[in-house]
Amino acid sequence: MAMRKFLNDPEQLVKEALVGVELAHSDLLRFDRENQLLISKSAPRQGKVALISGGGSGHEPLHGGFVGVGMLDAACAGEVFTSPVPDQMLAATKAVDGGAGVVHIVKNYTGDVLNFKMAADEAADEGIKVEAVVMDDDVAVQDSLYTAGRRGVGATVLAEKIAGAAAARGDDLAAVAGIVRHVNERARSFGIALSSCTPPASGKPIFDLPEGEMEVGIGIHGEPGRRRAPLGTASEIAELMVEAVISDLKPASGANLLVFLNGMGGTPQIELYLMFAEVEARLSKAGYKTTRSLVGSYITSLEMAGASLTVLELSDATTALWDAPVNTPALRWGV
Amino acid sequence: MAMRKFLNDPEQLVKEALVGVELAHSDLLRFDRENQLLISKSAPRQGKVALISGGGSGHEPLHGGFVGVGMLDAACAGEVFTSPVPDQMLAATKAVDGGAGVVHIVKNYTGDVLNFKMAADEAADEGIKVEAVVMDDDVAVQDSLYTAGRRGVGATVLAEKIAGAAAARGDDLAAVAGIVRHVNERARSFGIALSSCTPPASGKPIFDLPEGEMEVGIGIHGEPGRRRAPLGTASEIAELMVEAVISDLKPASGANLLVFLNGMGGTPQIELYLMFAEVEARLSKAGYKTTRSLVGSYITSLEMAGASLTVLELSDATTALWDAPVNTPALRWGV
Repeated sequence: MAMRKFLNDPEQLVKEALVGVELAHSDLLRFDRENQLLISKSAPRQGKVALISGGGSGHEPLHGGFVGVGMLDAACAGEVFTSPVPDQMLAATKAVDGGAGVVHIVKNYTGDVLNFKMAADEAADEGIKVEAVVMDDDVAVQDSLYTAGRRGVGATVLAEKIAGAAAARGDDLAAVAGIVRHVNERARSFGIALSSCTPPASGKPIFDLPEGEMEVGIGIHGEPGRRRAPLGTASEIAELMVEAVISDLKPASGANLLVFLNGMGGTPQIELYLMFAEVEARLSKAGYKTTRSLVGSYITSLEMAGASLTVLELSDATTALWDAPVNTPALRWGV
Repeated sequence: MAMRKFLNDPEQLVKEALVGVELAHSDLLRFDRENQLLISKSAPRQGKVALISGGGSGHEPLHGGFVGVGMLDAACAGEVFTSPVPDQMLAATKAVDGGAGVVHIVKNYTGDVLNFKMAADEAADEGIKVEAVVMDDDVAVQDSLYTAGRRGVGATVLAEKIAGAAAARGDDLAAVAGIVRHVNERARSFGIALSSCTPPASGKPIFDLPEGEMEVGIGIHGEPGRRRAPLGTASEIAELMVEAVISDLKPASGANLLVFLNGMGGTPQIELYLMFAEVEARLSKAGYKTTRSLVGSYITSLEMAGASLTVLELSDATTALWDAPVNTPALRWGV
């Protein structure tokens, strides 16, 4: 089984990688081996609403890279492209609850939604207040291979940052959950893949995409999107992405936007910044103001070549929460 | 010409991408289109020693991603894998000089060294004090395709951060240049490629590496290393890298180390953290203390799959400079 990967035993990959995350970021978090969780060293904090998320591995830095201060309190890591189990989510919820309740940020995939629901019910039985918010910002398809309704993608990163800041300043459970919902409602995403990727356990590409073609509206597990098309220029692809996102989001005229141009893992920065410039030119021409931006590979699909665009319509309140201090392995400012 | 790339015209790629960098980071830097430079908005600062670097594009975030406050004052971008020209380096030197002189951080590639030398001579003729330091931390080969002597790779990132902090606190020209030299002397690097990469202008992979093989001791432009070998396990590869670096660096017994596990562009984070854990286990067993670390893709070769290890032996002085505030697109803390 020949792959272009640094790997020992595929079955041990997630655990071995999380050991590395703990070693590199021991000031911020610890690795709970038994439950396969990354937990903030500052959790639990009495009286602070806690935030947890989780999902399949292979999307790093999502979610473990966002555990620390001012963002997530814990992240549950499933195996590659596989939902974590309810016991993990329950253990995370119990580990971080400081008495003010726990928000579950759940990407809309059937397994994640079901498992987080079971964990929330069990936590409630044990007296912990939980509010779950399901993210579904991907406008590419209505239903998909692993989803009823729209998929949850890039807006998850933004919700974790913005709601994490709200929790840090002392907002209560309903308010923090409300902010996650608000971000989900005012954000939309759309992705394009230029290549497939190969999960280590199978050693086989998850789909076949010949060079010179692109998958328009790809999901983060390689779920098919709207259509397959000949590879366009960066300019044509930016047009597609902006059209898909803006026509669905319908921001107010002249709105302030947070533009998140995300790499899927295998696309170099030089191409991401080229795409950001193309996207920005179109948004600016349409009268919008990009007042905040994020360019880089933050929600990935292993080594997939591709990019996704997430646009969030900002208010003064969400802008201030975005700017608030954050200290995590993957996002850090103000500290 | 089918490639898996976001691209308009290959000849315009670098300029178009730098427009994106400027748009995304306009608080920190500006793009000088005429000279193809990224220049810190805080430069020139009267009395502060300025630092510039540069090299071929395709290695992002190196160098433009390190322009801002507390690191580089400007970066000269050549075309992909091609040295910038002396006029760019001269323009950068003039743009950032605040009267206290300019340090040129030069990776050891024949074109870069020659062109930076010409620019330094011209700057001196115009009355600007310049000290150039050539980085040559790659222990893989003594001479290579584009190099007399060892190549300059990952230690460049560390030198830019550490010397940038020294300049920010007010060290003079000789002191700042001395710190760059010190970092170069106390750091060593070694890289492994699992795939080739494809420069947009040619549309052809720069070398051929069959799946299941690895290039041991690769350079950042795909220059061959020590040997080609069957792909080993992560554990075996970590052993190779640590052996190569430590046997050459020979840190003092029990030394404090900064361990920089760098991705070449196409390797996902999950694999980088796995490799970091493997490297760390070996260094720890050998009695060294990893007191600082950096894990991520910071000096890349487009979408190449692979990783390099850089180890810097730290002193209290360089540790404090590493920890000092930095505000750039790619490294940010303390602000």
